[in-house]
Amino acid sequence: MRETPLLLTDIPQLLTFAGGAKPRAGKAMRETGLVKDGAVLMRDGVILASGPRREIQRLPAARKARKLEAGGVVMPAFCDCHTHPVFAAPRLNDFAMRVGGSSYADIKKAGGGIVSSVRGVRESSVEELAGFAAANFARMLRCGTAAIEAKSGYGLSLEAELKSLRAIARAAQDVPVDVAPTLLAAHAVPPEFGGDAAKYVDFVIEKIIPAVAREKLAVFADVFCEKGYFSPEQSARIMKAAAKAGLKPKFHAEQMNRTGGALAAAAAKAVSADHLDMADASDIAALKRAGTIAVLLPASNCFLGLPYPPARTMIDAGLPVALATDFNPGTSPCWNMQLVAALACTQMRMTPEEALCAATVNGAFAMGFGGRAGTIQKGRQADLLVLRARDYREAVYYFGDNLCSMVFKRGVAAWNAAA
Amino acid sequence: MRETPLLLTDIPQLLTFAGGAKPRAGKAMRETGLVKDGAVLMRDGVILASGPRREIQRLPAARKARKLEAGGVVMPAFCDCHTHPVFAAPRLNDFAMRVGGSSYADIKKAGGGIVSSVRGVRESSVEELAGFAAANFARMLRCGTAAIEAKSGYGLSLEAELKSLRAIARAAQDVPVDVAPTLLAAHAVPPEFGGDAAKYVDFVIEKIIPAVAREKLAVFADVFCEKGYFSPEQSARIMKAAAKAGLKPKFHAEQMNRTGGALAAAAAKAVSADHLDMADASDIAALKRAGTIAVLLPASNCFLGLPYPPARTMIDAGLPVALATDFNPGTSPCWNMQLVAALACTQMRMTPEEALCAATVNGAFAMGFGGRAGTIQKGRQADLLVLRARDYREAVYYFGDNLCSMVFKRGVAAWNAAA
Repeated sequence: MRETPLLLTDIPQLLTFAGGAKPRAGKAMRETGLVKDGAVLMRDGVILASGPRREIQRLPAARKARKLEAGGVVMPAFCDCHTHPVFAAPRLNDFAMRVGGSSYADIKKAGGGIVSSVRGVRESSVEELAGFAAANFARMLRCGTAAIEAKSGYGLSLEAELKSLRAIARAAQDVPVDVAPTLLAAHAVPPEFGGDAAKYVDFVIEKIIPAVAREKLAVFADVFCEKGYFSPEQSARIMKAAAKAGLKPKFHAEQMNRTGGALAAAAAKAVSADHLDMADASDIAALKRAGTIAVLLPASNCFLGLPYPPARTMIDAGLPVALATDFNPGTSPCWNMQLVAALACTQMRMTPEEALCAATVNGAFAMGFGGRAGTIQKGRQADLLVLRARDYREAVYYFGDNLCSMVFKRGVAAWNAAA
Repeated sequence: MRETPLLLTDIPQLLTFAGGAKPRAGKAMRETGLVKDGAVLMRDGVILASGPRREIQRLPAARKARKLEAGGVVMPAFCDCHTHPVFAAPRLNDFAMRVGGSSYADIKKAGGGIVSSVRGVRESSVEELAGFAAANFARMLRCGTAAIEAKSGYGLSLEAELKSLRAIARAAQDVPVDVAPTLLAAHAVPPEFGGDAAKYVDFVIEKIIPAVAREKLAVFADVFCEKGYFSPEQSARIMKAAAKAGLKPKFHAEQMNRTGGALAAAAAKAVSADHLDMADASDIAALKRAGTIAVLLPASNCFLGLPYPPARTMIDAGLPVALATDFNPGTSPCWNMQLVAALACTQMRMTPEEALCAATVNGAFAMGFGGRAGTIQKGRQADLLVLRARDYREAVYYFGDNLCSMVFKRGVAAWNAAA
């Protein structure tokens, strides 16, 4: 039984990013597929056609379609390919201490830092965690995000990592978004291991990865490859075991220090290497050769007041770049991809077109949804958003608010500001 | 005829900033007047009482009141004391050129820069400009702002400056916000003066100020005291004439260069000196002695990638600090005071309490609304907002979205996200 089609018109600018089975690199990141006075025709969650209104509305399916006026720019829904949405509480005390001048050591002494999030997750039920994650997914959805990569990593025990991933799966049922779950057991060395990273790496490999794979709770595995956390060698070991268990590799790499994480990510043929604030030309070349996507997280740089990654160099070198929020309670309490894209322009000199490409189609590829989400074209999921704007560049120019008036997920209005 | 009172409850945290007939300085900026499980009682646009729910609900007026559950933190509505809301179009081409690496000279050659906004204003009718300004006021209102200082300054001719101020007055009728109008004729030297700033200063003094005063179109006069624009001496001359005409002085000072604008503002006993990115200790001391409020505009620093003003030094020196958006099409397309307050914390190390004080009560004083708006206390205007938050610090921690669920202007729900 087929649905009545939906015809979306009154679209002063339609950005499609249509084409290709690969993430965009170089100049192709600027090809928005812009259509003026556009229309989108959808049915059964899928796009039937998109393009100039005069052409689309002549199609037979368009004649019998329900009609809806967008009244603003339409573009693919955002694909947020790096988030940490499973935690029990915002870290407000840490935040207030940090802006008040306290050191990380002071914050730790006061019971803050990642350990406080770990405590919160361990003490919460799966139902509670699912509720927190769903609330975060809903915040993202209202800002135009319809596909989300979601990491565990505040559990750091077999039980609590499984619980976190189960919570992600439940939350994904409750909010109309696609979710790509990622096991980030190697986010930090849990307190009970007394700083013995090697021992915890063994535990992750021998206990956590197999259990997660058995229950099919994750698509990706990730590791925080950073000085004082996990070395490139330890990260490589974890990723080898993850790959063997069917989990695709992702790396947190070169955030605060250049430690070799990007080269390890390239050697592991990681789907993405994330942060890369300190990456240099040799890292960029290695990632490009490996087919690894650079996922940049400028909201965390902004929040922490740290230097931004060399996005311009990466794009000019032909490395595909994606953008994500890094939403998490410690270093990036931002769920709005519009601000992320705006920061990409103002702080990293990405063009508006590159930023929107990185926030949609390239983000989709960085979480395994390439060819399905992130573009507006025939046969793809009807995941799209409407902006209160006449020109798509307003999405990255006006900053600090949510410009979305509607978000469609698989052809259904999942959020409508006017409703 | 008295209205039925309205009793607002279900307020996990109520921030009042109650007290005082002066802007807050030093440690007093951290005194939020926090009440847990609070309530606010209002009638006829005014606050009758606010405080602990158990006390407030026992008052006779509370018993017969309509009841409404806030369901989140309640605080004074934001007071945005520095905006440029009268322009015809966003400067999207300038923005794209700038992030693409073009110089200001290139942008100017392409027809961009302030001149393009001046052209837009001159070619628009007062009705059109009022519509643009009202749309901007409405965007601010939805983000929790209920009092707005609004500058002219994209007209730069007698007719176009009068038209801009008339547009502000009309827009203020159409949106439920209080507006403090400011004449900023001395925003730049208009093209027809061929760079002769002195001649334009004479014109402002002899023609524009008297006409604006005659029509009572502005409360304040402002000047862009900056290298290549107006010197401290020229600024002082303009402000002397403005004061004589009954307009209170404000200064754009020390934004890109330290030119002596802060000292000129202090000498003029300006209500505020704004930007102050390059201000030094002697400027801070002079402003403090003069009773001038420092208005900081971190969204413009963020947008332009420029260093932030020394907020910490100012507050520690006892200078009252206010925050504002600087909303304008060239250097700060941001209308959300929540992001401004968040940037104040993360980029300038203001505490959450200081940032919220600077965005409410001190902002009110910087636009002549002190003692009337910016606090929640008996007898003051019932201008307040409800946040989707249990802890007030979330307002500055979660960044990049609008957390307001309701905004009350003079006791009336002027915006309600759920409605």
